[in-house]
Amino acid sequence: MTYPKQDTAPGTGPTMNGETHMSEGTAPAAGEAASVADEAARERLLYLRGSIDNLDAALVHLLAERFKCTQQVGELKARHSLPPADPAREAAQIERLRRLAEDAKLDPAFAEKFLNFIIGEVVRHHRAIADRTHEEATAEAAGPAAG
Amino acid sequence: MTYPKQDTAPGTGPTMNGETHMSEGTAPAAGEAASVADEAARERLLYLRGSIDNLDAALVHLLAERFKCTQQVGELKARHSLPPADPAREAAQIERLRRLAEDAKLDPAFAEKFLNFIIGEVVRHHRAIADRTHEEATAEAAGPAAG
Repeated sequence: MTYPKQDTAPGTGPTMNGETHMSEGTAPAAGEAASVADEAARERLLYLRGSIDNLDAALVHLLAERFKCTQQVGELKARHSLPPADPAREAAQIERLRRLAEDAKLDPAFAEKFLNFIIGEVVRHHRAIADRTHEEATAEAAGPAAG
Repeated sequence: MTYPKQDTAPGTGPTMNGETHMSEGTAPAAGEAASVADEAARERLLYLRGSIDNLDAALVHLLAERFKCTQQVGELKARHSLPPADPAREAAQIERLRRLAEDAKLDPAFAEKFLNFIIGEVVRHHRAIADRTHEEATAEAAGPAAG
């Protein structure tokens, strides 16, 4: 699956200090010019990886917060004997995220895959919570000695 | 791609309008108290889902930004004939994200699975870019008529 991606002006990436040195449009006549281009490419790669690392840190922290919410949902559902999964809610979430992804120029199919990946994990958590809650309820019903 | 869907306990799903009518865990005597508790639970569920939706919107936008970065990395790698995947970089990313996840009280194993999920998508994109770049280079080498 390919998605129409953002086009960058070819060979014009800024280096770490903000200068642009790339010269892709020129003929690779000299080996020296090629090695300068390689050095600039390496700097540009490090620069982009720095941004990716920053975004990943933000993603991990948001995911941690999201699981705090779904953990509470799981406990709520277990206490009220609600089913761990909710297909109608999931369908609405997928529809919404696909729309948001389109606006953000993210492949909507990927956004859907991403949400399914997260939901799969959440439902596993909810099942575990439901099992624990059921065990605790059973132990409680067995009498005070068990509690 | 279809994702293994959550199976709901038969006949216990919430209705489309979000109401829940289950009373499995409650003693039949206290029907009214149970319905007040159910109402409070339903409100709490909607509250938590609001937070989850906000976090998901943030996640989608960060992912869009991340793919803009990796798109540029992909083009850089294709121009300089670097391999799409980089196992040493990936190992360092996983190690770092696991540490960040631990600090944020997110399951490090999940953080690793998440990164692998994203990287899998990115590498697919990079291969597509590399293929396109190779095709373009071949077309260019064929003469100005192709360009």
